[in-house]
Amino acid sequence: MGKIEDRLAELDVVLPPPVVTPPGVVLPFAFVHVVDNRAMISGHAPQTSDGSLAGPFGKLGTDLTVEQGYVSARLVGLSILGSLQRELGTLDRVHGWVKALGMVNADADFTDHPAVINGFSDLILEVFGPDVGVHSRSAVGMASLPWSIPVEIEAEVVVR
Amino acid sequence: MGKIEDRLAELDVVLPPPVVTPPGVVLPFAFVHVVDNRAMISGHAPQTSDGSLAGPFGKLGTDLTVEQGYVSARLVGLSILGSLQRELGTLDRVHGWVKALGMVNADADFTDHPAVINGFSDLILEVFGPDVGVHSRSAVGMASLPWSIPVEIEAEVVVR
Amino acid sequence: MGKIEDRLAELDVVLPPPVVTPPGVVLPFAFVHVVDNRAMISGHAPQTSDGSLAGPFGKLGTDLTVEQGYVSARLVGLSILGSLQRELGTLDRVHGWVKALGMVNADADFTDHPAVINGFSDLILEVFGPDVGVHSRSAVGMASLPWSIPVEIEAEVVVR
Repeated sequence: MGKIEDRLAELDVVLPPPVVTPPGVVLPFAFVHVVDNRAMISGHAPQTSDGSLAGPFGKLGTDLTVEQGYVSARLVGLSILGSLQRELGTLDRVHGWVKALGMVNADADFTDHPAVINGFSDLILEVFGPDVGVHSRSAVGMASLPWSIPVEIEAEVVVR
Repeated sequence: MGKIEDRLAELDVVLPPPVVTPPGVVLPFAFVHVVDNRAMISGHAPQTSDGSLAGPFGKLGTDLTVEQGYVSARLVGLSILGSLQRELGTLDRVHGWVKALGMVNADADFTDHPAVINGFSDLILEVFGPDVGVHSRSAVGMASLPWSIPVEIEAEVVVR
Repeated sequence: MGKIEDRLAELDVVLPPPVVTPPGVVLPFAFVHVVDNRAMISGHAPQTSDGSLAGPFGKLGTDLTVEQGYVSARLVGLSILGSLQRELGTLDRVHGWVKALGMVNADADFTDHPAVINGFSDLILEVFGPDVGVHSRSAVGMASLPWSIPVEIEAEVVVR
């Protein structure tokens, strides 16, 4: 394994296995799709360590606190790192983060989307450092998300 | 015409003409914008064969069944293929699909966004096959969409 | 300064300073992140000339008219141009616009998202002209946006 994997061990972070979706769900797309030197990362969900979807489920503003949303966004980040590692072999192949679209399952009055998606950004910066981890980002509120997950994030990295 | 056009004929699929928007609507952007070898595809709507917007209109979870949403997402795919063909001359110039953002007009409790957007993904894989058609994807719920269309999808392909 | 800056002066347009966010807000990402020849633009908000968030706040369909939304989208465009200019030194380095995702804070029945986001597209075309300013675009309705801003836009340009 590589330097980023050492860093994950140092942080005591374990990446989840491929997502186990509810019965009957068909997902005919790639979780990570490498095109030239770009790795396109599909919308990911928070996962538990056994691969299933991680609760709490529901909406920010109604069902989850900002702190719970932050933890969910961090779990989405770990799910993304797991997918990237399986596709790339080692996370050392990530040359730089490009962008992330942070989608929060939120009610009409919620206003703290950035504080939720910080759970993802803080993880990426913690693991990759400020030079490789820096990224552009949006954090916005969705009417609903698959299986009532509280956060879904899609992203892009440059690989070598 | 090219191999992909032959494949469309084989599947008995006819691509719609440019979208006919409601009176007074101004859309000051490109439906497909080619930058270097990337074709950026604007958010597209479901169309009928005469070019107008295709119903049913409204929200998943309230007004449309998942099956109706699936058909709408397939129609969005056909609209996108029509725009790509007009811009590129032939769909054979599509070297690979990159990503798609599948946006579902959904109520707050809807949870089956992936099953809706599969109408798009299945079409792309059917027409282009698994090597060219593979793509990354997100499927999420919007509070509302233009003219109450049930699905809007933006995407990116690599061209040659 | 460059030709685009001359054009801004001709249009009597002044770009705002860096955004002043509400107290306690942490935004651990880059407003513009340049990767190779791509400048990735994070989700931006409407700003006043002193840098703070510009009202009116709230939702299209409930709190703002389409005309007010159009003005907000134009202000988001000015905020983006300000960030680009600070990152690139001069807006003459923008070789071409690539795409924009126009996110409207909208209620469930709103249908005029394109007319709102036209405030952004019209500005870009006015400032950069049709060759450099042409872009792909989506205009969609979000359940909620940070701090109840009415419009958030993320975008990408190619730089030289």
